[in-house]
Amino acid sequence: MAPTGSKAVPVNRPTIKDVARHAKVSLKTVSRVINNELSVREETRERVQRAIDELDYEPDQSARSLRSATSYALGLVYDNPNPYYVISVQNGVLAACRDQGFGLQIHPCDSRVPDLADELRELVRRARLAGLVLAPPMSERMDLIRHLAGHGIRLVRILSAAEDPNDGYPCVYVDDRDAAYDITEHLIQLGHQRIGFLWGGAEHRSSPERFKGYEAALKAYDIPLDKKLVIPGDYSFEDGFRGARRLFALRDRPTAIFGSNDEIAAGVLAAAKANGIDVPYELSIAGFEDSPFSKQSWPALTTAKQATEDIARHAALRLIAELRPSAGAPPPANRGFSPQLVIRDSTARVRIAASS
Amino acid sequence: MAPTGSKAVPVNRPTIKDVARHAKVSLKTVSRVINNELSVREETRERVQRAIDELDYEPDQSARSLRSATSYALGLVYDNPNPYYVISVQNGVLAACRDQGFGLQIHPCDSRVPDLADELRELVRRARLAGLVLAPPMSERMDLIRHLAGHGIRLVRILSAAEDPNDGYPCVYVDDRDAAYDITEHLIQLGHQRIGFLWGGAEHRSSPERFKGYEAALKAYDIPLDKKLVIPGDYSFEDGFRGARRLFALRDRPTAIFGSNDEIAAGVLAAAKANGIDVPYELSIAGFEDSPFSKQSWPALTTAKQATEDIARHAALRLIAELRPSAGAPPPANRGFSPQLVIRDSTARVRIAASS
Repeated sequence: MAPTGSKAVPVNRPTIKDVARHAKVSLKTVSRVINNELSVREETRERVQRAIDELDYEPDQSARSLRSATSYALGLVYDNPNPYYVISVQNGVLAACRDQGFGLQIHPCDSRVPDLADELRELVRRARLAGLVLAPPMSERMDLIRHLAGHGIRLVRILSAAEDPNDGYPCVYVDDRDAAYDITEHLIQLGHQRIGFLWGGAEHRSSPERFKGYEAALKAYDIPLDKKLVIPGDYSFEDGFRGARRLFALRDRPTAIFGSNDEIAAGVLAAAKANGIDVPYELSIAGFEDSPFSKQSWPALTTAKQATEDIARHAALRLIAELRPSAGAPPPANRGFSPQLVIRDSTARVRIAASS
Repeated sequence: MAPTGSKAVPVNRPTIKDVARHAKVSLKTVSRVINNELSVREETRERVQRAIDELDYEPDQSARSLRSATSYALGLVYDNPNPYYVISVQNGVLAACRDQGFGLQIHPCDSRVPDLADELRELVRRARLAGLVLAPPMSERMDLIRHLAGHGIRLVRILSAAEDPNDGYPCVYVDDRDAAYDITEHLIQLGHQRIGFLWGGAEHRSSPERFKGYEAALKAYDIPLDKKLVIPGDYSFEDGFRGARRLFALRDRPTAIFGSNDEIAAGVLAAAKANGIDVPYELSIAGFEDSPFSKQSWPALTTAKQATEDIARHAALRLIAELRPSAGAPPPANRGFSPQLVIRDSTARVRIAASS
C-alpha cells in the first residue's frame, strides 16, 4: 500500500484569515475562490490564488472532508504523442471507473516541466480527485511519486519493469524487456544478423527496457552489437522515418529494423517505400504495441501485442481497491503483464542479396 | 443562448425524507449517497439510488447551489470509433479548459441506447459538471438537446451544417458539404467520371452532408449518379476495405473512390494493395479529415483538412462564455468552419486503361 503520509504541521500554519488579509479581500471571497465558484471576477481570483501560493496555505480540515466527500472521480495523467496508446489507456481506465461508479478527468501534461508536482497537487485539489492513474513517463519518476504520496495523494502507476518493484507504491508493470527479446529472436531466427534498433524517448523507461531485450537476444545468439545500427529518437513516426534513412545510408545496411513502437515502425515502412526498398524481401520491419496501424499497413507489421486497455483497467481497479477496500476481500496486489509476439507480413527470411 | 428552462414543480414533490423512508435508511445515508461519499456500502447505495429513481427525487435548492459552487469541470461526450478524431477533439477542448481554469471529464457513450438522456443527466449530477460539449452524433439529436437544456444543463454542440442553424442552442458548425464538393470536383477535373463514394455512419449528419457535396459536384459537371458506385457503411477502416472490394467487383469499376473519412480511405488503400491495383495510376483515392495516417500512408492521401482541434477549442470557449459571461464583452456567438482540400499523391489524372 502507498504510504499516505501526514505532513508535519508548522506551528504558524497560515489560516484563511491570513489569505484574506494578504489578498485584501473578504473571508467569503477567499472561500469562493477555494470552492471555484464562478461568481468571482478573474482579477480577484488571481489575487487570492497568488496569496494562497505565497503563504503556502492549505484548506483546513473541514474543507478536506468536503473534498473526500465529493471524490467521485479519478484523474488520468499522461504525456504521450501516440493517440492510439492514449485512447487505449483512457478506455481501460474508463471501463474500471464506470464499473465502480467513478468519473474520469484527463490531464495530459508535459513531463519535463520543473513544477509538475505542484501542477498535479493543484489538479487533485481543484478537481477534488479521489486519486491519480499515472502513465509513463510520470509514473517512473520516483521523486514525483514520493512527493505526491507524501502529500496524501492516492495513486497507481503504469510501469515498464521486468518484475514487481515492491517499493511500497501501487503499480501494474509491463515486461517490455522480455517482449523485445522475443521480437529480436524472431528476426535472428529468420537469419538476420544486422538488425537495426530505433529507440523511443529516453524519458520512458520502456525504451531502455526494450533496448535491453534487443541487446540480450543478440548476446544469446553471439551476434556482436554494432553501435552504428542503434539510433536514438522519440516514439514517433518522424523519428522512425529519419532513423531508417540514417540506417539506409550505411555502407553495410541492416536487413531488419526493430522500431521501438509501431509509430516508429510506420516511419521505417514509409522510408523504405520512399527509397524503393521492398518490405519484407529486402528489409524486415518489426514494431511494438499492436496498434490498429500495425494491422492496417501494407504489409501488416510484426509487433508485440501489448494489452494496453487491459493493463490500464487493472491499474484503475488497483487504485479503486485502495480507495474503497471491501470487507473480507484480499488486499489489492500489484500485477504484471507480458506483451506477446505477433508475427505478420513485414518480417521474412533474410535474402543474401539485400545486405550486399 | 440556450433556453435553460425551469420544470414545473409538482405539488407533492418528493423530499429527501420520502427517499429515506422508501429505502428504509437514515436521512444521513441518503445524503451520503447523493454526495457520492465512499463510505456507503454498495448494496445500500443501490437501494437508495433505486428509491431516488422510483420517486423521481431531485436534490433540493441547497444541493443545487452546492453543485454550482463546485462546477469547475466540463464534460466531453462522444461516440466515435476513430482515435485520431477523439484525441483531436479532446485536445481542443482541453486547451480551452486549461486556458479558462476548468477541468475536463470525458464520457464516451453509445449514441444508440434509449436512455442516453438519463445517462447524461446523471453524469452531470454526479460529476457536478458546469456543462457539456457534445460531439456528433449526440450533438445532432434535437430530442436529446431539448431534453438536456430543458433540465437546465448547459451545453454546446459540434455540428455538421452548411450554415448556422440558429435554433437557440449554442454550437460550432462544420461545412462538410462544401468540402466534399471540392474533393469531388478535384477528382472530376483530373478526368474521373466513375467516382465511387463510401458513406460514413448514417447516424452522423456529416455523412449525408458529404454525400450531398459529392452529388452536387457530379450534377454541376453533368455526370449522372450511378447508384452502384455508392456504398453504405461506417466511418471505419473495415468498411472502407469491404466497400472497395465491392466496387472492384463491378464489371465497370470506378477509376476513383472518395472515402467519407481517412479511416475509410485507408481501408480502400489496403484493398487496392491486396488486389494489386496501383494507386494512383489505376485508382485515385481521396479521404476526409487530414489525419496523421493520411500523411503517413503510401501514397499520402488527398483529403480535406478539418481543423478538429481548433473547432473543439472554439466549442468549449463558446460554452465557457455562456457559463461565465464577461462584463462588457460581446455576447458569445456560434461559429462556422470550412475544411480545406489538401491534394497529395493518392489522386492523379485518369488513365483510360484502368477502367476498361
